[in-house]
Amino acid sequence: MGEKRMNTRPLKSKHIPRATIRRLATYVQVLESLQLEGVEVISSNPLAEACDVNGSQVRKDLAYFGEFGIRGVGYQVKPLISSIKEALGVDREWRMALVGVGNLGTALLNHTEFRARGFNIMAIFDCNPFKIGKIVCGLEVYCTKYMKSMAEELGLEMGIITTPPERAQRAAQHLVDAGITSILNFSSARIKVPDHVQVEYVDFFHQLYTVAFNASQNRMGR
Amino acid sequence: MGEKRMNTRPLKSKHIPRATIRRLATYVQVLESLQLEGVEVISSNPLAEACDVNGSQVRKDLAYFGEFGIRGVGYQVKPLISSIKEALGVDREWRMALVGVGNLGTALLNHTEFRARGFNIMAIFDCNPFKIGKIVCGLEVYCTKYMKSMAEELGLEMGIITTPPERAQRAAQHLVDAGITSILNFSSARIKVPDHVQVEYVDFFHQLYTVAFNASQNRMGR
Repeated sequence: MGEKRMNTRPLKSKHIPRATIRRLATYVQVLESLQLEGVEVISSNPLAEACDVNGSQVRKDLAYFGEFGIRGVGYQVKPLISSIKEALGVDREWRMALVGVGNLGTALLNHTEFRARGFNIMAIFDCNPFKIGKIVCGLEVYCTKYMKSMAEELGLEMGIITTPPERAQRAAQHLVDAGITSILNFSSARIKVPDHVQVEYVDFFHQLYTVAFNASQNRMGR
Repeated sequence: MGEKRMNTRPLKSKHIPRATIRRLATYVQVLESLQLEGVEVISSNPLAEACDVNGSQVRKDLAYFGEFGIRGVGYQVKPLISSIKEALGVDREWRMALVGVGNLGTALLNHTEFRARGFNIMAIFDCNPFKIGKIVCGLEVYCTKYMKSMAEELGLEMGIITTPPERAQRAAQHLVDAGITSILNFSSARIKVPDHVQVEYVDFFHQLYTVAFNASQNRMGR
Protein backbone atom coordinates (compact mmCIF):
# COMPACT_ATOMS: atom_id res chain seq x y z
CA MET A 1 0.00 0.00 0.00
CA GLY A 2 2.94 2.34 -0.66
CA GLU A 3 2.32 5.86 -1.78
CA LYS A 4 2.18 6.27 -5.52
CA ARG A 5 3.25 9.67 -6.81
CA MET A 6 1.38 11.76 -9.32
CA ASN A 7 2.66 11.35 -12.79
CA THR A 8 1.81 14.12 -15.20
CA ARG A 9 3.53 12.73 -18.25
CA PRO A 10 1.67 13.32 -21.49
CA LEU A 11 -0.86 10.95 -22.97
CA LYS A 12 0.26 7.47 -23.94
CA SER A 13 -1.54 7.81 -27.23
CA LYS A 14 -3.05 10.73 -29.04
CA HIS A 15 -5.94 8.59 -30.21
CA ILE A 16 -8.25 9.24 -27.30
CA PRO A 17 -11.76 8.11 -28.24
CA ARG A 18 -14.24 10.95 -28.63
CA ALA A 19 -16.46 9.59 -25.84
CA THR A 20 -13.45 9.64 -23.49
CA ILE A 21 -12.73 13.28 -24.34
CA ARG A 22 -16.35 14.00 -23.55
CA ARG A 23 -16.06 12.35 -20.13
CA LEU A 24 -12.70 13.99 -19.41
CA ALA A 25 -14.38 17.35 -20.03
CA THR A 26 -17.06 16.35 -17.50
CA TYR A 27 -14.43 15.29 -14.95
CA VAL A 28 -12.69 18.66 -15.29
CA GLN A 29 -15.96 20.49 -14.70
CA VAL A 30 -16.91 18.40 -11.68
CA LEU A 31 -13.37 18.53 -10.25
CA GLU A 32 -13.32 22.31 -10.62
CA SER A 33 -16.61 22.55 -8.70
CA LEU A 34 -15.18 20.27 -6.00
CA GLN A 35 -12.04 22.39 -5.84
CA LEU A 36 -14.17 25.51 -5.28
CA GLU A 37 -15.84 23.66 -2.40
CA GLY A 38 -12.42 23.03 -0.87
CA VAL A 39 -12.12 19.32 -1.73
CA GLU A 40 -8.44 18.34 -2.12
CA VAL A 41 -8.59 14.58 -2.62
CA ILE A 42 -11.34 12.44 -4.11
CA SER A 43 -11.56 8.71 -4.78
CA SER A 44 -12.89 7.35 -8.04
CA ASN A 45 -16.32 6.22 -6.81
CA PRO A 46 -17.61 9.58 -5.55
CA LEU A 47 -16.04 11.26 -8.59
CA ALA A 48 -17.86 8.76 -10.80
CA GLU A 49 -21.13 9.40 -9.01
CA ALA A 50 -20.80 13.16 -9.41
CA CYS A 51 -20.11 12.64 -13.12
CA ASP A 52 -22.90 10.11 -13.74
CA VAL A 53 -20.57 7.33 -14.86
CA ASN A 54 -19.40 4.20 -13.06
CA GLY A 55 -16.24 3.94 -11.00
CA SER A 56 -14.45 1.47 -13.25
CA GLN A 57 -15.08 3.79 -16.20
CA VAL A 58 -13.42 6.68 -14.32
CA ARG A 59 -10.41 4.53 -13.45
CA LYS A 60 -10.16 3.32 -17.04
CA ASP A 61 -10.42 6.84 -18.47
CA LEU A 62 -7.80 8.21 -16.13
CA ALA A 63 -5.51 5.34 -17.05
CA TYR A 64 -5.00 7.14 -20.38
CA PHE A 65 -2.83 9.56 -18.47
CA GLY A 66 -0.59 6.90 -17.01
CA GLU A 67 -0.93 6.67 -13.24
CA PHE A 68 -2.74 9.23 -11.20
CA GLY A 69 -3.51 9.56 -7.56
CA ILE A 70 -2.38 7.91 -4.39
CA ARG A 71 -3.41 4.28 -4.10
CA GLY A 72 -5.99 3.69 -1.38
CA VAL A 73 -6.49 7.42 -0.87
CA GLY A 74 -7.72 8.92 -4.09
CA TYR A 75 -6.91 11.49 -6.70
CA GLN A 76 -5.43 14.83 -5.76
CA VAL A 77 -7.92 17.25 -7.24
CA LYS A 78 -5.65 20.11 -8.27
CA PRO A 79 -2.94 18.16 -10.14
CA LEU A 80 -5.60 15.94 -11.70
CA ILE A 81 -7.38 18.99 -13.15
CA SER A 82 -4.07 20.33 -14.50
CA SER A 83 -3.11 17.03 -16.07
CA ILE A 84 -6.46 16.46 -17.76
CA LYS A 85 -6.44 20.04 -19.06
CA GLU A 86 -2.91 19.64 -20.35
CA ALA A 87 -3.87 16.41 -22.10
CA LEU A 88 -6.93 18.05 -23.64
CA GLY A 89 -4.94 21.07 -24.77
CA VAL A 90 -7.08 23.44 -22.72
CA ASP A 91 -4.33 24.58 -20.35
CA ARG A 92 -3.73 27.61 -22.59
CA GLU A 93 -5.62 30.50 -24.15
CA TRP A 94 -7.55 29.96 -27.37
CA ARG A 95 -8.19 33.09 -29.44
CA MET A 96 -11.63 32.93 -30.98
CA ALA A 97 -13.91 34.61 -33.50
CA LEU A 98 -17.69 34.46 -33.23
CA VAL A 99 -19.92 34.84 -36.31
CA GLY A 100 -23.59 35.72 -35.82
CA VAL A 101 -24.38 38.17 -33.03
CA GLY A 102 -28.02 37.23 -32.34
CA ASN A 103 -29.51 35.95 -29.08
CA LEU A 104 -27.42 32.79 -29.09
CA GLY A 105 -24.19 34.63 -29.92
CA THR A 106 -24.93 37.16 -27.19
CA ALA A 107 -25.68 34.35 -24.72
CA LEU A 108 -22.26 32.83 -25.44
CA LEU A 109 -20.55 36.23 -25.13
CA ASN A 110 -22.18 36.64 -21.72
CA HIS A 111 -21.13 33.15 -20.66
CA THR A 112 -18.58 33.83 -17.93
CA GLU A 113 -17.07 30.36 -18.16
CA PHE A 114 -15.75 30.88 -21.66
CA ARG A 115 -12.97 33.23 -20.66
CA ALA A 116 -12.49 31.49 -17.30
CA ARG A 117 -11.63 28.32 -19.22
CA GLY A 118 -9.26 30.05 -21.61
CA PHE A 119 -11.64 30.38 -24.55
CA ASN A 120 -11.25 34.05 -25.35
CA ILE A 121 -13.71 35.45 -27.88
CA MET A 122 -11.75 38.40 -29.27
CA ALA A 123 -13.68 39.40 -32.38
CA ILE A 124 -17.37 39.19 -33.32
CA PHE A 125 -18.86 39.37 -36.81
CA ASP A 126 -22.23 39.73 -38.46
CA CYS A 127 -23.48 40.49 -41.96
CA ASN A 128 -26.50 42.51 -40.79
CA PRO A 129 -25.78 46.22 -41.40
CA PHE A 130 -27.99 47.11 -38.42
CA LYS A 131 -25.71 45.14 -36.12
CA ILE A 132 -22.34 46.14 -37.56
CA GLY A 133 -20.68 48.81 -35.41
CA LYS A 134 -22.73 48.03 -32.30
CA ILE A 135 -20.94 47.12 -29.07
CA VAL A 136 -21.99 43.76 -27.60
CA CYS A 137 -20.40 42.64 -24.32
CA GLY A 138 -17.58 45.11 -24.85
CA LEU A 139 -16.76 44.04 -28.41
CA GLU A 140 -17.58 45.90 -31.63
CA VAL A 141 -19.53 43.91 -34.22
CA TYR A 142 -17.53 43.82 -37.47
CA CYS A 143 -18.62 43.07 -41.01
CA THR A 144 -17.47 39.58 -42.02
CA LYS A 145 -15.36 41.10 -44.82
CA TYR A 146 -12.84 42.20 -42.19
CA MET A 147 -12.49 38.72 -40.75
CA LYS A 148 -9.33 37.78 -42.62
CA SER A 149 -7.36 40.88 -41.65
CA MET A 150 -8.56 40.68 -38.05
CA ALA A 151 -7.75 36.98 -37.83
CA GLU A 152 -4.17 37.76 -38.86
CA GLU A 153 -3.88 40.78 -36.59
CA LEU A 154 -5.35 39.08 -33.50
CA GLY A 155 -4.03 35.57 -34.18
CA LEU A 156 -7.52 34.02 -34.18
CA GLU A 157 -7.41 30.22 -34.19
CA MET A 158 -10.93 29.02 -33.59
CA GLY A 159 -14.34 30.08 -34.85
CA ILE A 160 -17.83 29.82 -33.41
CA ILE A 161 -20.84 29.90 -35.73
CA THR A 162 -24.06 31.19 -34.14
CA THR A 163 -25.81 32.32 -37.31
CA PRO A 164 -29.23 31.13 -38.47
CA PRO A 165 -28.82 27.78 -40.32
CA GLU A 166 -29.18 29.30 -43.79
CA ARG A 167 -26.13 31.53 -43.17
CA ALA A 168 -23.92 28.91 -41.53
CA GLN A 169 -22.18 27.76 -44.71
CA ARG A 170 -21.25 31.31 -45.65
CA ALA A 171 -19.98 31.95 -42.12
CA ALA A 172 -17.86 28.79 -42.34
CA GLN A 173 -16.44 29.95 -45.68
CA HIS A 174 -15.43 33.28 -44.16
CA LEU A 175 -13.71 31.49 -41.27
CA VAL A 176 -11.88 29.10 -43.60
CA ASP A 177 -10.82 31.99 -45.88
CA ALA A 178 -9.48 33.76 -42.79
CA GLY A 179 -7.23 30.76 -42.10
CA ILE A 180 -9.20 29.44 -39.13
CA THR A 181 -9.05 25.64 -39.04
CA SER A 182 -11.16 24.78 -35.97
CA ILE A 183 -14.87 25.53 -35.95
CA LEU A 184 -17.61 25.02 -33.40
CA ASN A 185 -20.97 25.16 -35.19
CA PHE A 186 -24.02 25.99 -33.06
CA SER A 187 -26.35 26.37 -36.05
CA SER A 188 -28.44 23.35 -36.97
CA ALA A 189 -27.08 23.28 -40.54
CA ARG A 190 -24.44 20.75 -41.61
CA ILE A 191 -21.54 22.65 -43.19
CA LYS A 192 -18.92 21.64 -45.76
CA VAL A 193 -15.30 22.56 -45.12
CA PRO A 194 -11.93 21.47 -46.60
CA ASP A 195 -10.28 18.39 -45.09
CA HIS A 196 -7.75 20.36 -43.04
CA VAL A 197 -10.56 22.13 -41.16
CA GLN A 198 -12.31 20.42 -38.25
CA VAL A 199 -15.90 21.14 -37.31
CA GLU A 200 -17.70 20.15 -34.13
CA TYR A 201 -21.48 20.46 -33.99
CA VAL A 202 -23.30 21.64 -30.91
CA ASP A 203 -26.69 20.18 -31.62
CA PHE A 204 -28.94 19.89 -28.63
CA PHE A 205 -31.59 18.02 -30.61
CA HIS A 206 -29.55 14.92 -29.79
CA GLN A 207 -30.18 15.52 -26.10
CA LEU A 208 -33.76 16.55 -26.73
CA TYR A 209 -34.34 13.31 -28.64
CA THR A 210 -32.64 11.34 -25.86
CA VAL A 211 -34.96 12.89 -23.27
CA ALA A 212 -37.99 12.21 -25.47
CA PHE A 213 -36.89 8.64 -26.09
CA ASN A 214 -36.38 7.88 -22.40
CA ALA A 215 -39.66 9.59 -21.48
CA SER A 216 -41.49 7.49 -24.09
CA GLN A 217 -39.92 4.31 -22.72
CA ASN A 218 -40.95 5.20 -19.17
CA ARG A 219 -44.46 5.91 -20.35
CA MET A 220 -44.67 2.54 -22.11
CA GLY A 221 -43.22 0.84 -19.04
CA ARG A 222 -45.93 2.17 -16.74
CA MET B 1 -32.29 -9.37 -55.70
CA GLY B 2 -36.01 -9.35 -54.92
CA GLU B 3 -37.63 -6.28 -53.46
CA LYS B 4 -37.65 -6.16 -49.71
CA ARG B 5 -40.51 -4.23 -48.18
CA MET B 6 -40.23 -1.58 -45.52
CA ASN B 7 -40.89 -2.89 -42.10
CA THR B 8 -41.84 -0.31 -39.54
CA ARG B 9 -42.28 -2.62 -36.60
CA PRO B 10 -41.11 -1.18 -33.31
CA LEU B 11 -37.61 -1.54 -31.94
CA LYS B 12 -36.32 -5.01 -31.20
CA SER B 13 -35.04 -3.80 -27.87
CA LYS B 14 -35.64 -0.69 -25.88
CA HIS B 15 -32.02 -0.64 -24.76
CA ILE B 16 -30.66 1.47 -27.56
CA PRO B 17 -27.20 2.71 -26.61
CA ARG B 18 -26.99 6.45 -26.05
CA ALA B 19 -24.46 6.90 -28.88
CA THR B 20 -26.91 5.20 -31.26
CA ILE B 21 -29.71 7.56 -30.23
CA ARG B 22 -27.32 10.41 -30.94
CA ARG B 23 -26.60 9.09 -34.44
CA LEU B 24 -30.28 8.33 -35.09
CA ALA B 25 -31.01 11.98 -34.29
CA THR B 26 -28.36 12.98 -36.84
CA TYR B 27 -29.83 10.64 -39.46
CA VAL B 28 -33.27 12.19 -38.98
CA GLN B 29 -31.85 15.68 -39.43
CA VAL B 30 -29.88 14.78 -42.54
CA LEU B 31 -32.77 12.75 -44.01
CA GLU B 32 -35.13 15.66 -43.44
CA SER B 33 -32.75 17.99 -45.32
CA LEU B 34 -32.52 15.45 -48.17
CA GLN B 35 -36.31 15.18 -48.24
CA LEU B 36 -36.57 18.97 -48.60
CA GLU B 37 -34.17 18.70 -51.57
CA GLY B 38 -36.52 16.17 -53.17
CA VAL B 39 -34.45 13.03 -52.51
CA GLU B 40 -36.75 9.97 -52.21
CA VAL B 41 -34.30 7.08 -51.91
CA ILE B 42 -30.75 7.01 -50.50
CA SER B 43 -28.27 4.20 -50.02
CA SER B 44 -26.30 3.80 -46.81
CA ASN B 45 -22.93 5.11 -48.06
CA PRO B 46 -24.04 8.60 -49.13
CA LEU B 47 -26.23 8.79 -46.02
CA ALA B 48 -23.19 7.85 -43.94
CA GLU B 49 -21.06 10.46 -45.66
CA ALA B 50 -23.64 13.19 -45.05
CA CYS B 51 -23.76 12.17 -41.38
CA ASP B 52 -19.99 11.88 -40.88
CA VAL B 53 -20.07 8.20 -39.92
CA ASN B 54 -19.11 5.11 -41.91
CA GLY B 55 -21.49 3.05 -44.02
CA SER B 56 -21.32 -0.10 -41.93
CA GLN B 57 -22.19 1.96 -38.83
CA VAL B 58 -25.30 3.30 -40.57
CA ARG B 59 -26.38 -0.20 -41.59
CA LYS B 60 -25.75 -1.49 -38.08
CA ASP B 61 -27.68 1.36 -36.46
CA LEU B 62 -30.65 0.94 -38.76
CA ALA B 63 -30.65 -2.78 -38.02
CA TYR B 64 -32.10 -1.85 -34.61
CA PHE B 65 -35.34 -1.20 -36.46
CA GLY B 66 -35.50 -4.60 -38.07
CA GLU B 67 -35.23 -4.40 -41.83
CA PHE B 68 -35.39 -1.15 -43.69
CA GLY B 69 -35.06 -0.23 -47.30
CA ILE B 70 -35.00 -2.04 -50.59
CA ARG B 71 -31.98 -4.26 -51.06
CA GLY B 72 -29.62 -2.99 -53.77
CA VAL B 73 -31.53 0.27 -54.07
CA GLY B 74 -31.43 2.04 -50.74
CA TYR B 75 -33.59 3.42 -48.01
CA GLN B 76 -36.84 5.18 -48.79
CA VAL B 77 -36.34 8.53 -47.14
CA LYS B 78 -39.88 9.32 -45.99
CA PRO B 79 -40.77 6.02 -44.26
CA LEU B 80 -37.26 5.84 -42.80
CA ILE B 81 -37.72 9.26 -41.16
CA SER B 82 -41.10 8.21 -39.78
CA SER B 83 -39.79 4.96 -38.39
CA ILE B 84 -36.77 6.50 -36.69
CA LYS B 85 -38.95 9.23 -35.21
CA GLU B 86 -41.46 6.68 -34.00
CA ALA B 87 -38.68 4.66 -32.40
CA LEU B 88 -37.23 7.76 -30.74
CA GLY B 89 -40.64 8.85 -29.49
CA VAL B 90 -40.46 12.13 -31.39
CA ASP B 91 -43.37 11.44 -33.74
CA ARG B 92 -45.67 13.33 -31.36
CA GLU B 93 -45.93 16.70 -29.63
CA TRP B 94 -44.01 17.33 -26.41
CA ARG B 95 -45.39 20.08 -24.18
CA MET B 96 -42.56 22.00 -22.61
CA ALA B 97 -41.76 24.60 -19.98
CA LEU B 98 -38.70 26.83 -20.19
CA VAL B 99 -37.12 28.36 -17.07
CA GLY B 100 -34.78 31.34 -17.47
CA VAL B 101 -35.74 33.88 -20.12
CA GLY B 102 -32.31 35.43 -20.80
CA ASN B 103 -30.41 35.50 -24.09
CA LEU B 104 -30.10 31.73 -24.26
CA GLY B 105 -33.76 31.14 -23.39
CA THR B 106 -34.79 33.71 -25.98
CA ALA B 107 -32.51 32.10 -28.58
CA LEU B 108 -34.25 28.76 -27.99
CA LEU B 109 -37.70 30.39 -28.14
CA ASN B 110 -36.73 31.87 -31.51
CA HIS B 111 -35.42 28.53 -32.75
CA THR B 112 -37.88 27.64 -35.50
CA GLU B 113 -36.96 23.96 -35.46
CA PHE B 114 -38.24 23.38 -31.96
CA ARG B 115 -41.90 23.55 -32.88
CA ALA B 116 -41.26 22.05 -36.31
CA ARG B 117 -39.95 18.94 -34.56
CA GLY B 118 -42.84 18.72 -32.13
CA PHE B 119 -41.10 20.31 -29.14
CA ASN B 120 -43.65 22.91 -28.18
CA ILE B 121 -42.54 25.41 -25.54
CA MET B 122 -45.89 26.45 -24.04
CA ALA B 123 -44.91 28.28 -20.85
CA ILE B 124 -41.88 30.35 -19.86
CA PHE B 125 -40.74 31.24 -16.36
CA ASP B 126 -38.29 33.53 -14.64
CA CYS B 127 -37.71 34.72 -11.09
CA ASN B 128 -36.61 38.22 -12.13
CA PRO B 129 -39.45 40.67 -11.34
CA PHE B 130 -38.33 42.88 -14.23
CA LYS B 131 -38.92 40.03 -16.67
CA ILE B 132 -42.18 38.66 -15.23
CA GLY B 133 -45.18 39.82 -17.25
CA LYS B 134 -43.15 40.63 -20.37
CA ILE B 135 -44.04 38.98 -23.67
CA VAL B 136 -41.18 37.05 -25.30
CA CYS B 137 -41.79 35.35 -28.63
CA GLY B 138 -45.53 35.52 -28.03
CA LEU B 139 -45.44 34.00 -24.54
CA GLU B 140 -45.88 35.80 -21.24
CA VAL B 141 -43.07 35.33 -18.72
CA TYR B 142 -44.53 33.87 -15.50
CA CYS B 143 -43.14 33.79 -11.99
CA THR B 144 -41.87 30.29 -11.16
CA LYS B 145 -44.41 30.04 -8.32
CA TYR B 146 -47.13 29.47 -10.94
CA MET B 147 -45.28 26.59 -12.56
CA LYS B 148 -47.14 23.81 -10.78
CA SER B 149 -50.62 25.08 -11.62
CA MET B 150 -49.62 25.84 -15.21
CA ALA B 151 -47.98 22.44 -15.63
CA GLU B 152 -51.25 20.80 -14.62
CA GLU B 153 -53.38 23.10 -16.73
CA LEU B 154 -51.25 22.81 -19.88
CA GLY B 155 -50.10 19.21 -19.40
CA LEU B 156 -46.40 20.16 -19.42
CA GLU B 157 -44.16 17.11 -19.60
CA MET B 158 -40.65 18.36 -20.21
CA GLY B 159 -38.60 21.25 -18.84
CA ILE B 160 -35.72 23.28 -20.25
CA ILE B 161 -33.36 25.08 -17.88
CA THR B 162 -31.66 28.16 -19.35
CA THR B 163 -30.92 29.98 -16.11
CA PRO B 164 -27.47 31.08 -14.95
CA PRO B 165 -25.69 28.12 -13.28
CA GLU B 166 -26.29 29.37 -9.72
CA ARG B 167 -30.07 29.26 -10.29
CA ALA B 168 -30.21 25.92 -12.09
CA GLN B 169 -30.81 23.77 -9.00
CA ARG B 170 -33.71 25.95 -7.90
CA ALA B 171 -35.17 25.85 -11.41
CA ALA B 172 -34.88 22.04 -11.36
CA GLN B 173 -36.64 21.90 -8.01
CA HIS B 174 -39.53 23.98 -9.36
CA LEU B 175 -39.83 21.65 -12.37
CA VAL B 176 -39.76 18.53 -10.19
CA ASP B 177 -42.33 20.03 -7.79
CA ALA B 178 -44.52 20.74 -10.80
CA GLY B 179 -44.46 17.03 -11.67
CA ILE B 180 -42.16 17.35 -14.68
CA THR B 181 -39.94 14.28 -14.96
CA SER B 182 -37.81 15.07 -18.03
CA ILE B 183 -35.35 17.95 -17.95
CA LEU B 184 -32.93 19.36 -20.49
CA ASN B 185 -30.35 21.46 -18.64
CA PHE B 186 -28.50 24.11 -20.68
CA SER B 187 -26.84 25.68 -17.64
CA SER B 188 -23.31 24.55 -16.86
CA ALA B 189 -24.28 23.48 -13.31
CA ARG B 190 -24.77 19.82 -12.41
CA ILE B 191 -28.19 19.45 -10.78
CA LYS B 192 -29.56 16.90 -8.31
CA VAL B 193 -32.99 15.42 -8.96
CA PRO B 194 -34.94 12.41 -7.58
CA ASP B 195 -34.36 9.05 -9.28
CA HIS B 196 -37.61 9.13 -11.25
CA VAL B 197 -36.54 12.36 -12.99
CA GLN B 198 -34.17 12.23 -15.96
CA VAL B 199 -31.82 15.07 -16.81
CA GLU B 200 -29.84 15.55 -20.01
CA TYR B 201 -27.08 18.14 -20.07
CA VAL B 202 -26.43 20.34 -23.06
CA ASP B 203 -22.86 21.25 -22.37
CA PHE B 204 -20.96 22.57 -25.32
CA PHE B 205 -17.68 22.63 -23.39
CA HIS B 206 -17.41 18.98 -24.41
CA GLN B 207 -17.32 20.03 -28.03
CA LEU B 208 -15.13 23.01 -27.29
CA TYR B 209 -12.66 20.72 -25.53
CA THR B 210 -12.81 18.27 -28.43
CA VAL B 211 -11.99 21.05 -30.90
CA ALA B 212 -9.15 22.28 -28.68
CA PHE B 213 -7.80 18.76 -28.25
CA ASN B 214 -7.78 18.06 -31.99
CA ALA B 215 -6.27 21.46 -32.76
CA SER B 216 -3.49 20.81 -30.22
CA GLN B 217 -2.78 17.43 -31.78
CA ASN B 218 -2.60 18.94 -35.28
CA ARG B 219 -0.24 21.60 -34.00
CA MET B 220 2.04 19.00 -32.43
CA GLY B 221 1.90 16.95 -35.61
CA ARG B 222 3.16 19.81 -37.81
